[in-house]
Amino acid sequence: MVLIQTVEELRDALFRIKSVGKSIGLVPTMGALHEGHLSLMRQARKENQVTVCSIFVNPTQFNNQEDLEKYPRTLDKDLELVEPYIDFVFAPTAEEVYREPATEKYDFGALEQVMEGPARPGHFNGVGIIVGRLFKWIEPDKAYFGEKDYQQLIIIKNLVKQLNMDIQIVGCPIVREASGLALSSRNQRLSEEERQKAANIYRILKESTLLATPNTEEIKHFVEMEINKIDILRLEYYEISDAETLQPIRNLNEAKMAIGCIAVYAGDVRLIDNIRYK
Amino acid sequence: MVLIQTVEELRDALFRIKSVGKSIGLVPTMGALHEGHLSLMRQARKENQVTVCSIFVNPTQFNNQEDLEKYPRTLDKDLELVEPYIDFVFAPTAEEVYREPATEKYDFGALEQVMEGPARPGHFNGVGIIVGRLFKWIEPDKAYFGEKDYQQLIIIKNLVKQLNMDIQIVGCPIVREASGLALSSRNQRLSEEERQKAANIYRILKESTLLATPNTEEIKHFVEMEINKIDILRLEYYEISDAETLQPIRNLNEAKMAIGCIAVYAGDVRLIDNIRYK
Repeated sequence: MVLIQTVEELRDALFRIKSVGKSIGLVPTMGALHEGHLSLMRQARKENQVTVCSIFVNPTQFNNQEDLEKYPRTLDKDLELVEPYIDFVFAPTAEEVYREPATEKYDFGALEQVMEGPARPGHFNGVGIIVGRLFKWIEPDKAYFGEKDYQQLIIIKNLVKQLNMDIQIVGCPIVREASGLALSSRNQRLSEEERQKAANIYRILKESTLLATPNTEEIKHFVEMEINKIDILRLEYYEISDAETLQPIRNLNEAKMAIGCIAVYAGDVRLIDNIRYK
Repeated sequence: MVLIQTVEELRDALFRIKSVGKSIGLVPTMGALHEGHLSLMRQARKENQVTVCSIFVNPTQFNNQEDLEKYPRTLDKDLELVEPYIDFVFAPTAEEVYREPATEKYDFGALEQVMEGPARPGHFNGVGIIVGRLFKWIEPDKAYFGEKDYQQLIIIKNLVKQLNMDIQIVGCPIVREASGLALSSRNQRLSEEERQKAANIYRILKESTLLATPNTEEIKHFVEMEINKIDILRLEYYEISDAETLQPIRNLNEAKMAIGCIAVYAGDVRLIDNIRYK
């Protein structure tokens, strides 16, 4: 495994690989790697001849300075974890990534008008900037993203169309603790009590898929009531949407695929999760 | 999650699900679950409306009585681990599974004449019997198997053709420890020294993919020499084959996809692993 820290070295290394026609799989991350990230890397290893993982805590996608500062950084451990799956780790400094100022403005239309969009102003533009740059520098054949950040996954599929690049975006299933809690680097910041109570999020989402009604107002009401019963959880939003357009639906029958997406504070840690209804 | 122990209860529960047209994903296991199994279950959860996991240490696929007796059994922990992903756990007794005597004889032709076939007489017939019965009882839309047991995966694809069933067999990537060691329930039986030295298996396989030669005799020779340098490892076989037919190849260019499969004893624990060359 080779650790690369500059764009120039990265392009040099990959130029030789592309010239012999080898396929490249990219897993973009912000480090603090857990089993969720590793599942992306295994899929990349399986489907490509050469694998690249980027590790970069991207300041332009944080709308909250405190969240950026508290985001865990564990590079040595990360390098050890990816070793079985990854050929090249790209871990640049912010200076290197933003040698060109971050002036790109992406318009994701209705996709960014819902859920995380209003909740985290500027977040998806920041995601678009970093992922767009990584795509241009690396030109992977496939890139891997977790379904936990479901809206991000859909937005990145849109980004690839806007950039007119031939990159297949692969979504990979959510990895959960035995308790049901979706893995997240932010889970490190949960107290033991918060972690236990946060396990209710997925339990409640799962229960909501068993309700007999297709009326999403009723399903959302159930989830809101149940979340509010857990003292340290505070619901930010729960939306049930068409899984392709991300637009809210009133009835599950309106969409071919329907997804429920939730954002919840457990204490002061913001968690997201989602579940498919159909 | 519902625990089911008889074939009759299983068929009752699934009859209702099939009658409303829901898709069923099956993950057959022998329990002693680890992250490798869980990755199959996540994929099943992602791709199906209903998920079934079977947990059954199948005596007819063990060619070695001691291996059967020493195979780890951890049902309570297993049930806890699968909870986030699985709707129905089928954990029958051997009496229940073999109410009809195990008289089926499967012929997998050349697929079973190589590697694990000669090394474990009767093994693949035992696998065919249990998986064939599970398929007939459950009639899943998709069934999930790990690529660690690569020959088994190919044989099960063949089994589905023989049974003339409409089941999609999904192979999932090998899950590894940070050291590179492929996860296996048998790893529990490794001493600390054995576990550390067993990590050389994947290191050596990976190095062998970087050799410049397409001559498989040379690649095999390299792997044999390197494995033999590690005192407690004893090579049983290393074969480089066409990844579809499993037949040995002399040159990597002979096959569209080429795979190297290894069986090694670390002390008295038998481990298998594999790697793709192209």
